[in-house]
This record gives sequence, structure tokens and C-alpha cells, in this order.
Amino acid sequence: MNPIIEKLKNIIQEKQSNLAVAADISSAAEVLELAEKIGDKICILKTHVDIFADFTPDFPTKLREIADRKNFLIFEDRKFADIGNTVSLQFSSGIYKIADWADLINAHSIVGPGIVDGLRKANKNSGLILLAQMTPEGNLFTEEYAMKTVEMAKVNSDFVVGFIGSSDKPEVMQKVREAAGEELMIFVPGIKLAAGGDDLGQTYNTPEKAIQNGADVIIVGRGIFQADDPSSEAEKYRAAGWEASQE
Amino acid sequence: MNPIIEKLKNIIQEKQSNLAVAADISSAAEVLELAEKIGDKICILKTHVDIFADFTPDFPTKLREIADRKNFLIFEDRKFADIGNTVSLQFSSGIYKIADWADLINAHSIVGPGIVDGLRKANKNSGLILLAQMTPEGNLFTEEYAMKTVEMAKVNSDFVVGFIGSSDKPEVMQKVREAAGEELMIFVPGIKLAAGGDDLGQTYNTPEKAIQNGADVIIVGRGIFQADDPSSEAEKYRAAGWEASQE
Repeated sequence: MNPIIEKLKNIIQEKQSNLAVAADISSAAEVLELAEKIGDKICILKTHVDIFADFTPDFPTKLREIADRKNFLIFEDRKFADIGNTVSLQFSSGIYKIADWADLINAHSIVGPGIVDGLRKANKNSGLILLAQMTPEGNLFTEEYAMKTVEMAKVNSDFVVGFIGSSDKPEVMQKVREAAGEELMIFVPGIKLAAGGDDLGQTYNTPEKAIQNGADVIIVGRGIFQADDPSSEAEKYRAAGWEASQE
Repeated sequence: MNPIIEKLKNIIQEKQSNLAVAADISSAAEVLELAEKIGDKICILKTHVDIFADFTPDFPTKLREIADRKNFLIFEDRKFADIGNTVSLQFSSGIYKIADWADLINAHSIVGPGIVDGLRKANKNSGLILLAQMTPEGNLFTEEYAMKTVEMAKVNSDFVVGFIGSSDKPEVMQKVREAAGEELMIFVPGIKLAAGGDDLGQTYNTPEKAIQNGADVIIVGRGIFQADDPSSEAEKYRAAGWEASQE
């Protein structure tokens, strides 16, 4: 089994948590604060380091320390989307040096298998998630696209650990699950306890719905980090996600 | 006419150059050096600021000064590919503050129209290019995808200035041209005077082929910046691209 998948599945069992929190926050200091508050409840913290106004090279070190202490993985949601040569550099070089610290990264399969090869070339210890689906209204993901993404993952299962899915199209997600087999994992964002949407085309689903449709990991953003008490809110999602996974 | 399109079309006429150079170089200092060498020959310099090991906040200021003096536009090839709320922050915030200095940016339409809205929300003076096609082998771009991308551009022509195209599928590029009309522009990367490919799935086309198939701007990377004399190599591409456009 891919070592990242093995590590993640162990964390999920040990912590009884299939909850990833999307820290879509533009302050590195606040992300570290959030990680301390909710780290015990989650299997993954998802970051966007390129939206921090206050990024410093010690941020990954500090986050790594919290992640190791509280036993969760770090998922840098960079959504690589360029040719192999470019993503290789974006992953390993630049200010962020993502390859040095991220357990999980993701990429758009639309570019073709060269994006997987380019990222692998620069990889140290990360697992790659391919985007098979997304939730925003009017997106151009199709069932055929999702199935080709699964094919691309299966021939690269040394490095690819799974997919971003969407329970908005449960029939497609179920086909992704069937085609991918049991080992590759499905991560589903856009989760809220109360369903709804924002004004920029993002729609939401509940933990139960996502898990029923085949999610291994639910990704929750504003529903937790914008809550008055993120820790108790994370506990609600952890319990809801875990309970749904045991049914 | 969109002010960025107007500015670019004026530069192309004044300099008799439809040549964009892709500075896929992991050193900010070397990009500035390249810009000085080839700035007179080009209409656009395309950057990847997120691969610089030596990025400092004065890089955009320095590049802007060269761009204004030598009369070319700056295209930050970030390939935004996330939901509206996230790309809005990636564009305006973080270390790079792309919205403060880029004349052109690009995005993947796969996310749906929310990505255009998210980027517009943070926009100051940039024009947006949508990816209608890409060149790497095994990519998942389809004709239907390209046509939906054109639709997305046309209803957002206050902000969208054109498309990344590929002359590997000339029939699709010609349909993009017809559907888009005369104003929206097509930018075609993967251009080399000698055709061929690299080992990460990237294939190349000649300036003449790209222009014949409908390109307004040809984007040349390693063929110029890896040349012994980038300036004289840029002149060859400028002449070849301009001549083809006059036929």
C-alpha cells in the first residue's frame, strides 16, 4: 500500500476522524492557531500557503510540528495545473518549497499524464490527489473526464493516492469509487452541516450525503474556521462523518 | 474594446511583433536580465514568479520598469484553477500580489464561471486569458470543452481577453477563432522553429503553423531563453511570426 494512504487510513482509525479542515485563511498565524485548536479532531489540515500575507519560511516547520504532535496530515491545496516541467519547479522550488513539507498535494488531470510525471520527478514524500470532480456551479467536469482521471491515477498508483470528488453528482462519484478500487481514496470538499451556497458559485453538501456517496474524507472549510468555537464545531463534523462511515 | 486588448494590439503593430517569450526560469535575476536582452523584440513576457528561489517584493517593480520602457506586457502564467473565493485571494494577496502588477493572467475554465467572477472581484488592471486547449500528450481538453470556454469568455468580455490555444488540433482552434470573433485573442504556446518534444509530454509547433491556424500571439520558451544569444534568437521568432501574420 502507498505509504501515505497507509498513514492516513491509520490516522482515520486511531482518531475516529475522516474530517479534513480547509484552512482557507489568509494569515499563517491564524492557520497555526486553528491547527492547535482543532488538530485533535482532524485527519488532514488543508492549506493555501499562497494566500498568506504573512508567510515566512518557518511556517511549514511550525505546522509540521503541530501535525506530528496532533497526528494529522498536511494537504497543500495548490491545484497544480501546468505542464510537467513547470509543475516540477512549482512543487519543489520557489518561496514555498511544497515538496519539503506537504503530505498531500493535488493536481488537475486535464493537462494529461505529464503533470503526474512532472510532480513525481520533484516528489520527496507526498501523495498526489487528482481532481476528478469539483462542486462549483457550471463547472466543466464530465463523467468521461472523471473516468479518464481514474485511469491516470491507476497507472500511477505509486504516487497518486486518490481523488477530489463531489457528491453533487453521486452517480459519477460512485463510478469513480468502483473504478478506483478500495485502496485509492476519495476526498470531498464543499461540506456543511447545513446545505447552501455562497455568491461565487460554490455549493455545499452534508457529511452524511458525501459519505453515503462514497467519500473517505470530508473536507469542511468556513463551517468550522468561521465558527465562534472551531473546536466544538469540528467535533460535530468529526462525529457526523465518523458515524456516517460506520453505517 | 477591452483596454488590455487595445494596448496589446497597439504594441503588436508598433513593434511588428506577435512574439511572447515564456521565461520559464527559476531565477528572478535571470528573468530581469532576459527581459533587458529581448524586451525590444516581444509583445509579452510570460513569467512564473512562483518558481523563483530568489523572489523579492521589488521584482515586479523592476520588471514593470523594463516592460514600460521596452513596451511589452507582463503575463503571469499562474493558471488559476480553484473556486472563486480562493482564486480571488491567490490573485490579490499572498507574497506575490499578482493583481498589483500583471497585465495578463490566465485560468482554467473547468472550475466554471465562478473562477472568472472570483478573479474579477480582485482585479485591478489585468486581462484574463482562459485555457481553451493545451499541448501536452494525453491531455483531456475536448472540442466541447473549448467551445464552452469560448461561451464563458464571451459573457465576460469586460475582463476576458482571449484564450490559450494549441495548433496540435487546428480544427478546434479554428472553431474557437470563429466562435470568439475578431476581438478576443488566441495565444499559442509550445512554439519552436524546429518541431519536436521533451520527455515530460510537451510537444512543439512552428510559428508559421500556429499563425496559419489562427494564433494572434506565439509563445516561445526554451527555444529563446536557452539559446546562446537569446536576442538574435528572439529576432528570428519575431520575424517568422510577423511574416506569417502578414500572409
